[in-house]
Amino acid sequence: MADKKVKNITSKSENLTQWYTDVCLKAELMDYAQMKGFIIYRPDGYALWENIQEYLNKRIKALGVRNVYLPTLIPMNLLQKEKDHISGFAPECAVVTRGGNKPLAEECVVRPTSETLFCDHFRSVVHSYNDLPVKYNQWCSVIRWEKTTRPFLRGSEFLWQEGHTLHESEVEAREFALSILRIYNEMGRDLLAIPFVMGQKPASEKFAGAVDTYTIEAIMPDGQALQSGTTHYLGTGFPEAYGIKYQDKDNKIAYPHYTSWGVSTRLLGALIMVHGDDEGLVLPPKIAPIQVAIVPIRMDSNPEVLKKAREIEEKLKNAGVRVYLDDSDKTPGWKFAQYEMKGIPLRLEIGPKDMEKGQVVLTKRYDSSKVFMNIDELEEKIPLLLEEIHTGMYNKALAFTNEHIVECRTFEEAKDVITSGRGFAKVMTSSACEEEDEKKMKEELNATPRVMPFDQRPFAEKDFITGEDADTVICFGRAY
Amino acid sequence: MADKKVKNITSKSENLTQWYTDVCLKAELMDYAQMKGFIIYRPDGYALWENIQEYLNKRIKALGVRNVYLPTLIPMNLLQKEKDHISGFAPECAVVTRGGNKPLAEECVVRPTSETLFCDHFRSVVHSYNDLPVKYNQWCSVIRWEKTTRPFLRGSEFLWQEGHTLHESEVEAREFALSILRIYNEMGRDLLAIPFVMGQKPASEKFAGAVDTYTIEAIMPDGQALQSGTTHYLGTGFPEAYGIKYQDKDNKIAYPHYTSWGVSTRLLGALIMVHGDDEGLVLPPKIAPIQVAIVPIRMDSNPEVLKKAREIEEKLKNAGVRVYLDDSDKTPGWKFAQYEMKGIPLRLEIGPKDMEKGQVVLTKRYDSSKVFMNIDELEEKIPLLLEEIHTGMYNKALAFTNEHIVECRTFEEAKDVITSGRGFAKVMTSSACEEEDEKKMKEELNATPRVMPFDQRPFAEKDFITGEDADTVICFGRAY
Repeated sequence: MADKKVKNITSKSENLTQWYTDVCLKAELMDYAQMKGFIIYRPDGYALWENIQEYLNKRIKALGVRNVYLPTLIPMNLLQKEKDHISGFAPECAVVTRGGNKPLAEECVVRPTSETLFCDHFRSVVHSYNDLPVKYNQWCSVIRWEKTTRPFLRGSEFLWQEGHTLHESEVEAREFALSILRIYNEMGRDLLAIPFVMGQKPASEKFAGAVDTYTIEAIMPDGQALQSGTTHYLGTGFPEAYGIKYQDKDNKIAYPHYTSWGVSTRLLGALIMVHGDDEGLVLPPKIAPIQVAIVPIRMDSNPEVLKKAREIEEKLKNAGVRVYLDDSDKTPGWKFAQYEMKGIPLRLEIGPKDMEKGQVVLTKRYDSSKVFMNIDELEEKIPLLLEEIHTGMYNKALAFTNEHIVECRTFEEAKDVITSGRGFAKVMTSSACEEEDEKKMKEELNATPRVMPFDQRPFAEKDFITGEDADTVICFGRAY
Repeated sequence: MADKKVKNITSKSENLTQWYTDVCLKAELMDYAQMKGFIIYRPDGYALWENIQEYLNKRIKALGVRNVYLPTLIPMNLLQKEKDHISGFAPECAVVTRGGNKPLAEECVVRPTSETLFCDHFRSVVHSYNDLPVKYNQWCSVIRWEKTTRPFLRGSEFLWQEGHTLHESEVEAREFALSILRIYNEMGRDLLAIPFVMGQKPASEKFAGAVDTYTIEAIMPDGQALQSGTTHYLGTGFPEAYGIKYQDKDNKIAYPHYTSWGVSTRLLGALIMVHGDDEGLVLPPKIAPIQVAIVPIRMDSNPEVLKKAREIEEKLKNAGVRVYLDDSDKTPGWKFAQYEMKGIPLRLEIGPKDMEKGQVVLTKRYDSSKVFMNIDELEEKIPLLLEEIHTGMYNKALAFTNEHIVECRTFEEAKDVITSGRGFAKVMTSSACEEEDEKKMKEELNATPRVMPFDQRPFAEKDFITGEDADTVICFGRAY
């Protein structure tokens, strides 16, 4: 940790945008690069991404997914084969026109996503039904030129994983896309302590080239939606455009069914937004690179304090706890503020008086509550306490999310929810009026249909705008 | 594994280049991308890189190195600040001239290496001696436009790690660069089963912008050198060019001492070259994604065979062995050829007759030797056998390397070694004649000074060309 004073940050409730930037910078998660829209992932920020990688690698490999790496550059001819796709991405591309001091015969783009490369490669991988399913994933960065950028949430470059799979049938492909979505959702619950709304995107919000897009959406403190991960069923359109054919079980030529799916470093943005407070970052224990920060008190005048602190450090390490002992000569006050800013889930103080009583003081970052704990019980009880903190943080976020999904029966109710920043306006619509409903919501409230939740239990009979017979539940919201 | 016939490959001794390409493609390590010089890292190739990442992450994190991520794109002004550096890299760059459908105000390059970005960032990280050392590393891909390319060995894009550290003193910085070099060397010994020659690069072969470059060099089957990893002591030149200053312990302004270091997917090329044979790839057990392939014999007529094979698979998994049971309906002959091509270190056959005897047949990939082993002893003995295989492969490669470093006392002797492909011509030179010696070796033999080995024990008194008093041992060779 750098030797500098922890400075105050803007209040979260007063100015969320400024607060967010303050936390990103002062918790040392990132720094701005010279080029607008590009950032540097500093060690404490990148470590969060590494923990996401570790979690997801384990989960997707268990489903038979294998990691690969495809080129950073995509030649123009390849990008242009699927029409919907190119029209969606071309305006955002960074274009390479020279290589090795010479103009390129064919311009290429820095990958904005890799469907086109995967499909070009799949053509030489898939020949028979025996070759299916193919389940690949790649960890990489992508570049999409953005006008308005914010650290992690929207940038001209971000880190992500992109999965690409081929299947024999539509049913299998859709089921696979859904099983990945469920893994993303469980990662929210079990690693990030963030509840998501799972569902399907309305046609207007689909990925360029997809038949259907599934999504997990989180609600931010200002009530706005953050699309946090998507999985796509792409049908056979890409395989047809790229000539991926195989001989099926009946000896007929067929096109495989395609899925792609991804989450990105945008999740770090969600993590900061959902859990952070006026003292800075607040990390859930499962993803925190350091789970417990030990701060010895009056260690100069009592050499025994540091000795005991080291013993505790060692014991906790052996118990599988990620622990950091700050034995620097900075004041305890500085250390407290520093580890609060950094969001470390648990602070452990030990001083001469505590030692006399055979105990330590533990302070939970997320609710500032204190616990006294017997030194002999630390190894056993701290892992349980970290579990408790995780559950506490998840439940707090879940309560917030549930409060911010508001059932609305009329446009006026929806307007009230959206304009007051109270979250998702959950409405009943008629699929026949989709365009009309979306247009009004967009033009008058700048709100878009974020998700048709999988939970489609109806709560009204009529479309909230047109009064037609309703058949669909949709959450409208403003989006990051 | 794909359902296709394993085809013959070119003989390694007859045509090394064609053999190499055959193995890369038929062991399914890579495929060519559409753009010349770019490749696709297929699952079996990328898994090798993941194992290198796992090994190195553990080792460098133990030295306090932390992973970060810096942008893919570098604006021109930043690249140009260090003069030696830009003149070394500019001719190889891919240049982005448009972004988001508009010409860029300032062109940028896709990173060929990231010294310039790290230094620009370090300026805002380092202010006081308390902030030092800084030890960062990044896993990413780099693009360097190459005219002649070969899979893994030289490509227009490759994967690597690049470490960047700052230190208070030259001694500390050099020692750090050397400690990383030792880790690379140990990775060769312990993970890749490849012996390297460790040493320093002569001035003419240094990294653009370095004071000194340290290197690990491997000798390929054709006697040519493969530079397999480098670490650089860069002095204070970059910090001065980028304005990275700090207040030292005496309250004076000072520039930190800089190191950078990297290994790349070129190591996969070394792995294939050093160990492969006429049947295909041969993987050392420590890096092999699958260590044991189980092939059941006559399983159709004897259902007990597959049952026992599954038991063995389960037991080996529990013993920490990476095992794959092929219960497909392909013939044992096809499976044997397939796992030979894929380089799996150990094949385990079990058929009805083996079961009667309570044993299995194990075949070592690297020397084709067979071992019969009692089924009850597999969990205990197979891990030991894998260790033995690793040691056997390393010793074989070490013997080859030692035989191919030939002490030469005259130019004629060196000429004989180089032109006959017998490996490194190890010579004694006088540093006063460096240019003259190098010029003659380059012009007449197309050989360059690969490394001044750390083992500088003299074996002659005079420079092998000029006859001046010798003071330096150098290995000359032709390089990939």
